[in-house]
Amino acid sequence: MWDALWINGTLATMAGTKYGLIRNGAIALCGDRIAWIGHAHSLQGDPAKAARAVFDADGRVVTPGLIDCHTHLVYAGTRWREFEKRCTGANRKDIIDAGGGPLSTVSATRAASYEVLLAQSAARARKLVSAGVTTVEIKSGYGLDLDTELRMLRIARQLGDALPLTVKSTFLGAHALAPEYAGRPDDYIEFLCAEVLPAAIEESLVDAVDGFCDAQGFTHAQIGKLFAAATDHGLPVKLHADQYSDFGAPRLVAQYRGLSADHIECASERTIRAMAEAGVVATLLPGANWTLSAQERPRVDLLRSYGIPMALATNCNPGSSPTTSPTMMMNIACQRFGLTPEEALAGFTRDGARALGIAESHGTLEPGKVADLAVWDIEHPAELAYFIGENRCAAVVKGGQLVYRQPEAAIGTMHYV
Amino acid sequence: MWDALWINGTLATMAGTKYGLIRNGAIALCGDRIAWIGHAHSLQGDPAKAARAVFDADGRVVTPGLIDCHTHLVYAGTRWREFEKRCTGANRKDIIDAGGGPLSTVSATRAASYEVLLAQSAARARKLVSAGVTTVEIKSGYGLDLDTELRMLRIARQLGDALPLTVKSTFLGAHALAPEYAGRPDDYIEFLCAEVLPAAIEESLVDAVDGFCDAQGFTHAQIGKLFAAATDHGLPVKLHADQYSDFGAPRLVAQYRGLSADHIECASERTIRAMAEAGVVATLLPGANWTLSAQERPRVDLLRSYGIPMALATNCNPGSSPTTSPTMMMNIACQRFGLTPEEALAGFTRDGARALGIAESHGTLEPGKVADLAVWDIEHPAELAYFIGENRCAAVVKGGQLVYRQPEAAIGTMHYV
Repeated sequence: MWDALWINGTLATMAGTKYGLIRNGAIALCGDRIAWIGHAHSLQGDPAKAARAVFDADGRVVTPGLIDCHTHLVYAGTRWREFEKRCTGANRKDIIDAGGGPLSTVSATRAASYEVLLAQSAARARKLVSAGVTTVEIKSGYGLDLDTELRMLRIARQLGDALPLTVKSTFLGAHALAPEYAGRPDDYIEFLCAEVLPAAIEESLVDAVDGFCDAQGFTHAQIGKLFAAATDHGLPVKLHADQYSDFGAPRLVAQYRGLSADHIECASERTIRAMAEAGVVATLLPGANWTLSAQERPRVDLLRSYGIPMALATNCNPGSSPTTSPTMMMNIACQRFGLTPEEALAGFTRDGARALGIAESHGTLEPGKVADLAVWDIEHPAELAYFIGENRCAAVVKGGQLVYRQPEAAIGTMHYV
Repeated sequence: MWDALWINGTLATMAGTKYGLIRNGAIALCGDRIAWIGHAHSLQGDPAKAARAVFDADGRVVTPGLIDCHTHLVYAGTRWREFEKRCTGANRKDIIDAGGGPLSTVSATRAASYEVLLAQSAARARKLVSAGVTTVEIKSGYGLDLDTELRMLRIARQLGDALPLTVKSTFLGAHALAPEYAGRPDDYIEFLCAEVLPAAIEESLVDAVDGFCDAQGFTHAQIGKLFAAATDHGLPVKLHADQYSDFGAPRLVAQYRGLSADHIECASERTIRAMAEAGVVATLLPGANWTLSAQERPRVDLLRSYGIPMALATNCNPGSSPTTSPTMMMNIACQRFGLTPEEALAGFTRDGARALGIAESHGTLEPGKVADLAVWDIEHPAELAYFIGENRCAAVVKGGQLVYRQPEAAIGTMHYV
């Protein structure tokens, strides 16, 4: 007897082509795993006797729980003033001159107590859960000093403990140059490698290491030093790469056989080829491209022809992507990057799992995988990208447990044995 | 003694410049009207004794209830297949050849029973309420025959009766040419003027008359005939105008001293000048511009310099604007049309009221106006446009009554006398 059985679902398994769609499908859960999945007519006997709890999806779409593989959701403060300024024509320099930009979030985050930072971040993490997310990556990088970087990473871990959410924690000390190290980026990288990263690892706070490698950020040599340190500690790497210029930064990820190169609006074909050869995932971030009104778009045609998996993420952050809406990111990715609705959903499921190195256990609905599901009040999975700014998430199952139910959703447990 | 008093609000009154912002503001309601509004320190005596019920906004932003002045929310079916096709390169003709386009919604709407159409439409209307909308305009136009046009308008009226929502009902029989009148548009307009419009008026179902005047739609002469009929019945007019070509359609609205010209991406300066002279509001519809990847943008610079009020609306419809999110429309209007966050909010409040001819009683927070309020879980009204795809609406007051409360919002009644 199974622990739970969902019936009457339109299952977008994301295993196979055309969403791996199973109409009138059923999915059985045992413990925290998927035990069986298939057409309802393949079920033997009375479904009511097959499981301890039976849930009727009532024709709704069931997808893998969403995977948001790139966020900065631990932060304090808001940056609406920058948005307002950009609407009236201000550029990046104007905004920074007026005290805005990433360092304003660094100031606010350093100043916030653990409790305040936790409360503000938890509100965003809860919104992600209610939007169908079951796994989230969270980066440090608004501290740029030992104490605040550790505080951010501890909060990321605590969110994973407190909420029905798998949290992957990424050390992004090399997000920007700390003001205390102005003019001394090499010293700052040395400080990160010698002090902050080891301290964070000592507390088991780090699952991967990230940086910002661009003409406006750190150099190849500086990030290479950081990546060497990460590799010495056995940690995988990823990178904010080629967002603003054709800097070849994704090739550094390829060199270290890293997980993903993120943004990559300006990456050249040579760079994309190197990613393909090293199995690096492309993480596309439509929110920042939209908010910053970027002229460049990721070369989706090349990514497809080289067979590179395209992950999508909210990039939740207060400056360039103030959002907790995966489905709005899917819509923007289709409209602005030319993804298909199926690629957009794959970006938040199968390919998002690849970007975090967890594809063996997450990202598709298949027997043996972790039972993370999202149930949607729509008739076809393409509608996730079709609607603009609506959250149609009706329920979320995390590790086999029903952990969220949209207040108005009428999903009923048919019976308990 | 007042019926209700809201305290600790950041009030965006939209009366005056800079949002008409009152920090630490209070707003008193009597019956369905605003009785008093001002700074908390102007309140005499103990707030707890000033009103029968006191609500603590806890620093949240309070705006006028949103006014969504252009929707097609009564319809049946879904059009995600078209979205998917457009993502893979299909154009308008490809979609229509494949059985899509507006006439596919006409077929689905004609085929839907009153109950089915009501249920599907009510779900969207409820989403609008939970997104802060207190007044909505709803058009017919997916019937194009007597029975279905009347059914749509009756449902619009019923939604207004059943939900805490003021509904303005617009006759849009001239949305497209009914298939039965293929090749005979003049006969169709005659049918509308002689049969459908009078029948709808007879049942008191019509507050305004609208049409589609463009190179792909009806001519000036045809819409002129419809507008003359509307005027004979004492009804105001409005128009889907210059969305696809510089057709001069808004000048027809000006000629009839109508309410608004809507879309107007392609309107020339001469046309815009005529709108200004006749006091015609410009209703901008970012959702369709976005979904259709339109090259043209409304000439916001000219609209500003001619002093034309710019309303915004969701344009809720299954083809070009599948949304019930006013705040996402604000975000797109800022990013894509260059509106400021303040103009975007004005578009859904003060200027939306002008587009419906109800500015004397709605659209701002001022004594004597109808007590329609939206309460938002943000710190500044600019954040309504800043967040991407999030619904921060915490509560809605309609005609003085608290009619919606976001399930997680902690707004408490402090006391009842």
